[in-house]
Amino acid sequence: MTYCLGIQTHQGLVMASDSRTNAGMDQVNVCRKMHLYIHEGERVFIILASGGLSITQSVTTLLRRDFDQGRGLASAPTFYDAARVVGEQIRRVGEMDREALKRDKISFNINVLLGGQIAGEKPHLYLIYPQGNPIQATEDSPYLQIGESKYGRPILDRGVRYRLTTLEEAVKFALISLDSTMRSNVTVGPPIDVVVYQNNDLRVRRYRRFTSKDPDLQRIQFQWEHSLRKAVLELPDVDFDEGAEQVI
Amino acid sequence: MTYCLGIQTHQGLVMASDSRTNAGMDQVNVCRKMHLYIHEGERVFIILASGGLSITQSVTTLLRRDFDQGRGLASAPTFYDAARVVGEQIRRVGEMDREALKRDKISFNINVLLGGQIAGEKPHLYLIYPQGNPIQATEDSPYLQIGESKYGRPILDRGVRYRLTTLEEAVKFALISLDSTMRSNVTVGPPIDVVVYQNNDLRVRRYRRFTSKDPDLQRIQFQWEHSLRKAVLELPDVDFDEGAEQVI
Repeated sequence: MTYCLGIQTHQGLVMASDSRTNAGMDQVNVCRKMHLYIHEGERVFIILASGGLSITQSVTTLLRRDFDQGRGLASAPTFYDAARVVGEQIRRVGEMDREALKRDKISFNINVLLGGQIAGEKPHLYLIYPQGNPIQATEDSPYLQIGESKYGRPILDRGVRYRLTTLEEAVKFALISLDSTMRSNVTVGPPIDVVVYQNNDLRVRRYRRFTSKDPDLQRIQFQWEHSLRKAVLELPDVDFDEGAEQVI
Repeated sequence: MTYCLGIQTHQGLVMASDSRTNAGMDQVNVCRKMHLYIHEGERVFIILASGGLSITQSVTTLLRRDFDQGRGLASAPTFYDAARVVGEQIRRVGEMDREALKRDKISFNINVLLGGQIAGEKPHLYLIYPQGNPIQATEDSPYLQIGESKYGRPILDRGVRYRLTTLEEAVKFALISLDSTMRSNVTVGPPIDVVVYQNNDLRVRRYRRFTSKDPDLQRIQFQWEHSLRKAVLELPDVDFDEGAEQVI
């Protein structure tokens, strides 16, 4: 399993991913799910991919090959076109593998988050589905998730606001969202990769990988758990009616 | 969809359920998912049920009929036997309906939480699966959930401890867990039914139904959201390496 998310605020993007892959419970590995395609000063693409490792590797490898040859993501005129480039690549890998997988009842399973910016445009954050079609984050829905998304969603729903949340705050929301997911589902695991992209930078200045023993991450986990319990205990007590006559 | 949970601590049980049922998005109704079967001073059973409404109603109706005639839950010698009574009832409804549902590709879908106590025993909390087999909450896993369980799980994982959590605190954890789920999934909705069962009471003294406009619930929601954001903002800032050389 995988959990990746992208948050877009008025200041820029935060993209974060876990690193656990597993082919069954007895084959668990670490694998980076974050891929950068950068022409500094001109275009930045941050890709996070969930799904079958063979499929996601094929897609990112072929995107890289094209990019290095000045095609695909390297030449997409707009960010929407870039999202379509990723979708087309997913479809081409689908043409190669979908039938053979289907024969053994394995689904063609890949979802991609694509964040970044092309010079002359605003930054964008897209999700591209296994069918190759894209959707985009909006001011009302300023984050997108792929993989095991439910555990980490409530904190985002409560906290992330496009016009209010700073990038520094968005990093904290992303780490808490990932940590909550890792805690409730062992198939999502560290290290956590985080990129912060500031509007109009057109390069990636802030990247960090958090291992499970990272002292900053441990401090955040500890303080978060402490604050959460305190917040619950400080809630007003709930009065109860005597008796249960109302219940059938 | 449904979300129900039971929490067992050293002091007793908290059982809580939402009330939304839907047969498709255009037929949304309110339906109590909490059912009490009580012989005061002798036995208390709190049942929460998720799944197809036709199935859960059949099971609880037949359990009630037997209970009122002194059979089934009314005569189970131990709580384990009571869990088996519920499982057998699920299997009997399965015999009535499973084939006909299967013909139209509808799954036989019911999960039941059974909490309570029989005089002479400790309190218990069970989950009974659609196949009729039961599992029990333990000191290490002091809560059980059915239905849309993922959104509301992180707060329970972080906060609920069998030996430390009081019933008053468990109520707050349950309300926050339900509220987080309702917020992230519209197919889970109010009113929320909550029962607090104190060890050895052998009756239900504390029950409350929270509508969406309940002022206490609104105060808890407001204060919780405020505290959560504050807790995130108070987390230590995260330093980032300059550059992204480490990322492939």
